[in-house]
Amino acid sequence: MASFVESFWGERNNGFDVLYHNMKHGHLSTKDLADFIRERAAIEEAYSRSMTKLAKSASNYTQLGTFAPVWDVFKISTEKVASCHLELVRKLQELIKEVQKYGDEQIKAHKKTKEEVSGTLEAVQNIQSIIQALQKSKENYNTKCVEQERLKKEGATQREIDKASIKSKKATDTYKLYVEKYAAAKSDFEKKMTETAQKFQDIEEMHLLHMKEIVESLSNTVKEIHLQIGQVHEEFINNMANTTAESLIQKFAESKGTGKERPGNVQMQIQLTFLTLMTKGTVLNQKQARISFFLLQKYWGRIVGGRGVWG
Amino acid sequence: MASFVESFWGERNNGFDVLYHNMKHGHLSTKDLADFIRERAAIEEAYSRSMTKLAKSASNYTQLGTFAPVWDVFKISTEKVASCHLELVRKLQELIKEVQKYGDEQIKAHKKTKEEVSGTLEAVQNIQSIIQALQKSKENYNTKCVEQERLKKEGATQREIDKASIKSKKATDTYKLYVEKYAAAKSDFEKKMTETAQKFQDIEEMHLLHMKEIVESLSNTVKEIHLQIGQVHEEFINNMANTTAESLIQKFAESKGTGKERPGNVQMQIQLTFLTLMTKGTVLNQKQARISFFLLQKYWGRIVGGRGVWG
Repeated sequence: MASFVESFWGERNNGFDVLYHNMKHGHLSTKDLADFIRERAAIEEAYSRSMTKLAKSASNYTQLGTFAPVWDVFKISTEKVASCHLELVRKLQELIKEVQKYGDEQIKAHKKTKEEVSGTLEAVQNIQSIIQALQKSKENYNTKCVEQERLKKEGATQREIDKASIKSKKATDTYKLYVEKYAAAKSDFEKKMTETAQKFQDIEEMHLLHMKEIVESLSNTVKEIHLQIGQVHEEFINNMANTTAESLIQKFAESKGTGKERPGNVQMQIQLTFLTLMTKGTVLNQKQARISFFLLQKYWGRIVGGRGVWG
Repeated sequence: MASFVESFWGERNNGFDVLYHNMKHGHLSTKDLADFIRERAAIEEAYSRSMTKLAKSASNYTQLGTFAPVWDVFKISTEKVASCHLELVRKLQELIKEVQKYGDEQIKAHKKTKEEVSGTLEAVQNIQSIIQALQKSKENYNTKCVEQERLKKEGATQREIDKASIKSKKATDTYKLYVEKYAAAKSDFEKKMTETAQKFQDIEEMHLLHMKEIVESLSNTVKEIHLQIGQVHEEFINNMANTTAESLIQKFAESKGTGKERPGNVQMQIQLTFLTLMTKGTVLNQKQARISFFLLQKYWGRIVGGRGVWG
């Protein structure tokens, strides 16, 4: 497995720089994650608001007709879906706070780490500048050697040759000095860089585990609300199964029914005053009254006294 | 169970009116259902668009650092959720077309029914007008009887009494006529209304079964997409489980690594020209050359020929 301790060396010795910036990018990814969750929360909030509006539409639909009670089933279910999404918003907002808290801790931890690895940064700068100086001293040494030999070959004066020899000796000393300095810097750099690469890997591991925990918390929340919404759907399906066509017809008949009594039988209602007058006021005897009553019946062809609906 | 045939009679005989309008309201409820599904589809479309935007945000987050590859997991999952909701939109739009088609059929069927029940409407209007006329004729009959008796009691002239008697007789005839007309109208109304109430109940049953089918289709679609979204969540959870901190560190080390070679050992590189000159150009013998080489080694304290990193 490729690790930081193994993979951040190389010719230019800038592995430290890459790893240090990677640590700093860890904070950017925390901010990105908070932004992602914030944007998701905003989407869920808008969805919840729209669903609440839809539930209101459902309750504003016609309350006339047999289908009317079904809108209540829709309204309740839609409101529940809206409230599930609002619950998701609430939980996401809590999670954002946690992410922000972690981001703040990260800044402090990175500041502390920066101090702790300052020695490594110096070692890096040291080996980089020594490598430059070494290269330069080597080139100078080469130049001086060639110059000395050229003078000898071309038969220059002894004074000139001696002068070149002194320069060559001085270049050789400088070259030797940097070869030695390099050995010390390399040893220091290698030791510190090994430690620091491991430290950066540990920091990164901790960061990634923390980020994965947040993501897990996010996906658990989303999953939980998803299950709740599934229950609302099941409830809706059950409620609709219970809302049979028969029950809706019955409900309508009961609430909007105009009455169960069919039109009654109507019979003529003889003026009682007339009869009373005939029997009492005009001094008819019982027999005459009975005859008059019999004649009335015959004339109208009906029995007097049937209850008419208009009493 | 309360049925239409039982529940739409009553004193005012306006059950027909209530049932006829209820049938017409059935078309309103169809339009409402189409509106409800249309509004839901619009909500889902907006949600899908927002999720697509969120997926783009995920791919725009920092591509630096060990966490960067996780954004791909987020992006893919968010895109899939967006596409599930878009699939829901597509299916809801299909459903809206079905509802609209049913609504059009309903208008035609209602028109046909209106013609079929026109006889019942006439029977309703007939019984209602006869009831009014019957009431009026009864009142008139009562008035005329009382008038005739009053004249007799107060000892009016025979001519006056005869005149009142003719009026009373006429009122009695009219009253009798409406009692008979009512009996015929009642019988006709009762027969037609019974048939029509059953017809309206059958229409309503068919309507409600059709509406319930549409609602079932709606809830099945919503459930199906809900299951698909659940699968996307599971996939995300699995992908995150596979994206371990170790694998992210390894990936970063492999892609952003600066090299596996630690700084090399550096040794002085003796000018070959110098040695060549010493051994050939200045005519030293083999033994002299070996001695010179030995002295050089001693002076620099190193073995010449060690591979330096700056060749």
